[in-house]
Amino acid sequence: MTTTDSVHPVAPEDVRRVTCIGAGVIGGGWVAQFLARGYDVTAWDPAPDGEAKLRRLVDAAWPALTQLGLAEGASRDRLTVAPSLEEACAEAQFVQESAPEKLELKRSLLAQLDAATPAGVVIASSTSGYPMTDMQTEAADPSRLLVGHPFNPPYLIPLVEVAGGERTAADAVAWASRFYEVAGKSVITMDRELPGFIANRLQEALWREALHMVANGEATVKEIDDSITEGPGLRWAFMGPCLTFALAGGEGGMGHMLDHFGPSLKSPWTRLEAPELDKALRDAMVDGCDEAAAGRSIADLVAERDQGVIDVLRATGRLPGQKDAQRGDAA
Amino acid sequence: MTTTDSVHPVAPEDVRRVTCIGAGVIGGGWVAQFLARGYDVTAWDPAPDGEAKLRRLVDAAWPALTQLGLAEGASRDRLTVAPSLEEACAEAQFVQESAPEKLELKRSLLAQLDAATPAGVVIASSTSGYPMTDMQTEAADPSRLLVGHPFNPPYLIPLVEVAGGERTAADAVAWASRFYEVAGKSVITMDRELPGFIANRLQEALWREALHMVANGEATVKEIDDSITEGPGLRWAFMGPCLTFALAGGEGGMGHMLDHFGPSLKSPWTRLEAPELDKALRDAMVDGCDEAAAGRSIADLVAERDQGVIDVLRATGRLPGQKDAQRGDAA
Repeated sequence: MTTTDSVHPVAPEDVRRVTCIGAGVIGGGWVAQFLARGYDVTAWDPAPDGEAKLRRLVDAAWPALTQLGLAEGASRDRLTVAPSLEEACAEAQFVQESAPEKLELKRSLLAQLDAATPAGVVIASSTSGYPMTDMQTEAADPSRLLVGHPFNPPYLIPLVEVAGGERTAADAVAWASRFYEVAGKSVITMDRELPGFIANRLQEALWREALHMVANGEATVKEIDDSITEGPGLRWAFMGPCLTFALAGGEGGMGHMLDHFGPSLKSPWTRLEAPELDKALRDAMVDGCDEAAAGRSIADLVAERDQGVIDVLRATGRLPGQKDAQRGDAA
Repeated sequence: MTTTDSVHPVAPEDVRRVTCIGAGVIGGGWVAQFLARGYDVTAWDPAPDGEAKLRRLVDAAWPALTQLGLAEGASRDRLTVAPSLEEACAEAQFVQESAPEKLELKRSLLAQLDAATPAGVVIASSTSGYPMTDMQTEAADPSRLLVGHPFNPPYLIPLVEVAGGERTAADAVAWASRFYEVAGKSVITMDRELPGFIANRLQEALWREALHMVANGEATVKEIDDSITEGPGLRWAFMGPCLTFALAGGEGGMGHMLDHFGPSLKSPWTRLEAPELDKALRDAMVDGCDEAAAGRSIADLVAERDQGVIDVLRATGRLPGQKDAQRGDAA
C-alpha cells in the first residue's frame, strides 16, 4: 500500500448516501444492510430484471432486519435504482461493487466507477478472492480502491475483510474499516494481500475436501452438512477453530493438544498437506491462543464453550426436549 | 464388514451399565454424557491422578448438563472408578475406549478389552481417525469392535460417527448406532472406512490451512478465530457448508453457484487442490442439495438461514444492542 494520503470528502461517521453496483445475492444483500442502517442507497445493475430481483431480495430480508432492529429512519423507500452507472455514482459518498467474479470485468468496471465517482470517495469491491493489486490496474485513481469482502448474507453475517492493493492509500483502508464498523459490521483489516483473504481460505479448504468426498462417493452432501451442523459447526458459531482445538488439550491447552495430535498432521485425514509442526509454529499457535484467550483460563473457556453450545442448541431448537418434538414431526 | 451376526446380551434400549476406558478430555466427557443420561458408569484410567482429573471434569460439566436436563435418576454418584481394566469391564454392557491416539496402544488395548468384556458386548473406540481395520488386528473377537467417534465435548456436541472395520459384524454397527441414539447422540453411520471419517476430514482441511497461514505470518490465531465466529461459523451451527453455499447461487441454487464460482476452484485460495468439477460432480452436488433440502425451496432455506443466524447471534450475545453493550465493557 502507498502511504500517500488521499482526501475524503466525508468522514466515515457522516456518510448518508451509499451506492451499490451489482444487485445480485451479494450486492442486493449489501443494499438491504445499508438500508437497514438508515442510509440512502442508490443501486445499479445491468440485468433487465435486476430491479425486480433486488426488490424481492430486500423484501425477503426485511423481516429479519426488522427483528434485528432498524436504525432510526431506515426505510425500503430510501432505495433508488439508477438508470446508469454514472448516475448511480454521481453523488455517492461510498461505493460497494459486487459484480460477477471475473477479473477482466472487475478491472474495467472499477475503472468506470473511479471515473464516475466524486474525487476521494472510497470504492470497495466485494470480490471473493482477487487481490486489489490485480483489479486496480486500469483505474485513473487506484489509491481509493480496496477490497471489502462480505459473507452471505451481508445483511446478517457481521464479517467484512478489508484489504488494499499495492496502489491503495493506507488512509483509504483505515477510512473503509471505520465506515464498515459504523455501518454495523465486524471488520478484519488485513495488512497484506492474500488470495481468498482469511475466512475464504479456511472455508475453501473445507469445501474442496467436501467436493473430493462427494466426487469419490465417500460421503453424501447430507452427511457432510450434518457432520458440521451436529459437530464442529456448533462450536464455530462463537469460538474459532484454534481456541476450540486448544480445549482438546485439556488442562494443558494448545501446547498439549499439539504434542498429542501433532502426529495426526501426517495422517491422510484430508487431501491438504500439513505444514511442518516445528517449534516456531508450535510457539506461534500457543502464544496466539494465549492472545486470543485474553486472560481467560482454560476452565473459563470450557465454561464459556459449554454455555455457548447449549445456547446455540436451544436457539436452533435442538435441545433434547425440542429435538424429541422435531423427531415426532418428522416421523 | 462381515455379515456374520454376533449375539448381543442386551438390547440398545436396555443398557444400564457403561464402561469408559481412558478418562482424559474425551473419555471423561463420555463419562459425563453417560452419567447425565442416567447410566451407571464405570471408568478406568492408568494415570495416577486420573480419578481426580475425571471428577473435576465431570463436576465442571455438570452445571451444563443439569441445564440441558438430566435423565431420571442421573447422578454423579453413579460413577465408579475401577482399580483395573479387568474389573472395569467385567459387567459392562457397552465399552467406550478413549485412550491416547497411538496405533500400537489402541491395538493392544482393544485386545485387552476384548478379553475382559463379556461375550457379545460392543466395544467402541473414540479414535479421531484410525480405521478400525488397522486397530482390531490383535483382538480374539474383532467382530464387536467398531469406531464411535465423538466431538469435544462429547457431553454437548451431538455427533457420533460410527464405522466398522473389515472384521466388524454389521449388526454390531447397527447395535452401536441405535445405542448412541438412545444415549442422546446424533449418529452418522458410515458404510465404509475413511481416514478421519467425515467431520474430521473437513475440519482438518480447515485446520491445516489455518496452520499454514500462521506458519507464514499471513494471519494471526485471533484473526483466524474471528474470521470464523464472525463469518461462516455463524451459519454452520445450523446449516452445513453445502446448503449454505447453495444459497450463494441465489434463486438458481447450487447449480448456479457452481457455474459462477466453479472457476474459483482453480484459484490459490487454499493449499488444497480441488477435484475436477465435471458434470458428474456438478450433478452429485445439485442432487445432493436437493436431497438435503428435503422439499424446502431456496426461499424457504433463505428464511431459515436468516432466522438461524439471528437466533445464534442473539443466543451468543451479539445482536447490535447486545454488541454495543459488550463494546462498552471492553472500552
